[in-house]
Amino acid sequence: MITKEEIAASYKQIQDEICVALETADGKAHFEQEEWEREGGGGGRTRVIQNGNIFEKGGVNFSAVHGNLPETIKNSLKVEQDDFFATGVSIVIHPNHPLVPIIHMNIRYFEMPSSFDFGKEPLRWFGGGIDLTPHYVFEEDARYFHAYLKSVCDAYHKDFYHRFKTWADNYFFIKHRDETRGVGGIFYDRLTATEDTTWETIYEFSKTLGRSFIPIYTELVKRNRDKPFTEAQQQWQYQRRSRYAEFNLVYDAGTKFGLETNGRIESILMSLPPTAKWFYDYKAEPGSEEEKTLSLLKKGINWV
Amino acid sequence: MITKEEIAASYKQIQDEICVALETADGKAHFEQEEWEREGGGGGRTRVIQNGNIFEKGGVNFSAVHGNLPETIKNSLKVEQDDFFATGVSIVIHPNHPLVPIIHMNIRYFEMPSSFDFGKEPLRWFGGGIDLTPHYVFEEDARYFHAYLKSVCDAYHKDFYHRFKTWADNYFFIKHRDETRGVGGIFYDRLTATEDTTWETIYEFSKTLGRSFIPIYTELVKRNRDKPFTEAQQQWQYQRRSRYAEFNLVYDAGTKFGLETNGRIESILMSLPPTAKWFYDYKAEPGSEEEKTLSLLKKGINWV
Repeated sequence: MITKEEIAASYKQIQDEICVALETADGKAHFEQEEWEREGGGGGRTRVIQNGNIFEKGGVNFSAVHGNLPETIKNSLKVEQDDFFATGVSIVIHPNHPLVPIIHMNIRYFEMPSSFDFGKEPLRWFGGGIDLTPHYVFEEDARYFHAYLKSVCDAYHKDFYHRFKTWADNYFFIKHRDETRGVGGIFYDRLTATEDTTWETIYEFSKTLGRSFIPIYTELVKRNRDKPFTEAQQQWQYQRRSRYAEFNLVYDAGTKFGLETNGRIESILMSLPPTAKWFYDYKAEPGSEEEKTLSLLKKGINWV
Repeated sequence: MITKEEIAASYKQIQDEICVALETADGKAHFEQEEWEREGGGGGRTRVIQNGNIFEKGGVNFSAVHGNLPETIKNSLKVEQDDFFATGVSIVIHPNHPLVPIIHMNIRYFEMPSSFDFGKEPLRWFGGGIDLTPHYVFEEDARYFHAYLKSVCDAYHKDFYHRFKTWADNYFFIKHRDETRGVGGIFYDRLTATEDTTWETIYEFSKTLGRSFIPIYTELVKRNRDKPFTEAQQQWQYQRRSRYAEFNLVYDAGTKFGLETNGRIESILMSLPPTAKWFYDYKAEPGSEEEKTLSLLKKGINWV
């Protein structure tokens, strides 16, 4: 039986590894850490890197919190117990360069400790995913990204990639714009042991996914960081970031959970972009790279 | 009996008056109009002014829509009828100048036409309000603003100002930041005829409120538009705008209604700021104007 303490400790370790690697990749900026405690129980380490060579604003957050669930969350999770434990690592990176993509990674574990006393299957699950939001979609990068994720998934279960890729398409969807947040990736929630997947497998998958973040993102940074770009492309980047903010504030379940459980606001909203612009009634020029990107922000594209 | 057609026509007229006056005040930019139709019924005239001398981005929207309510809205309104009619004027202005405040005005009317056949009190109500969001709170401006609103309210009912001012304090509140969106104003919803207030009174109040927008805002513009400002103040303005975006995307009922009824997205989200910035873990300097502003973003301040 894997304990919550063990999971939290390994996630904390993954946070450390990622921060070291991102600082090395950036070569200029360093993470500033804020250790915080949650009033209801637990706490976390928020680490933010800003104004770097590559990273304009990036957050790598670890938390392990516990306490009593508000009624609204209990209802939405359809649980009766009151106490919860949740731990996870959550990352959002907004690069300076419009041709370098935004990336998000999250691995998390949730349990209701009291349910372990009931003599039946306790309430616990894993969730997570990685998804990519290029300001400009380059198909070769999207293919590389998805192929890498598929290789991670395939090592644990033959259905994981297909299931979790579809889940990401549906989850990272900005309904009111009828567009996906980016080129998707994988997303899974409430993943529990089944006949052909042990808790150990799910836990290992979660750690491997967390550790795939660095090789995936450093490759995408390397491919694009030295390309020249124009002021118009930068403006487009700011506009794409506004869609990112819309998704996170209107739809994102983690953000909602954080706001409703009185989480630490600056940690929850560290995902929001440094600069975002809303232009009224923007229309991409026919045949432009911007129009091509919009045409690729759709569900169901097979990238592998 | 005031008809919905009459109400819509007078609101449309108010939109016209306001646009002429704002163009005159700006002296450079002009409104661009988009006439749109709603798939389910009705439509509107969205007018946006951009990159003016004073107004960086402002929208003055008129709409008169009808159709069938989605289940989610029916449940939240606790109504059984299916068809609705809604008309209103909605304004948000984001000025260039950090010392000129953001302002929002809305007047609206809602009815369920089918309920008029039931032989009992039909379902209809008015809503609206004006609220002010200064990037820097100047107490004399807030007092002027509230005194003006009180004079409008007092002409129709001795309780209106107190009731609607308190309502605005509670409504324009960013719970996760524990701060009000600005210095409030007035807000009312589902206002119906009572023993001492006729439909005629409520309707006249609504039009007078709509027509108070121009004298209120042009005075606040005049007081502040020629003041010098610094780059640091501009950055603070962008940060305050990010809070405005948070409120509108997370809490605003009109925005939610629009997104859930498949309204015209660009009209619904015209309220979002041209440029917004999220700085991680910003702390105002003790004794600064920024700190003073934050200290005044509280409910329950008596400005008159």
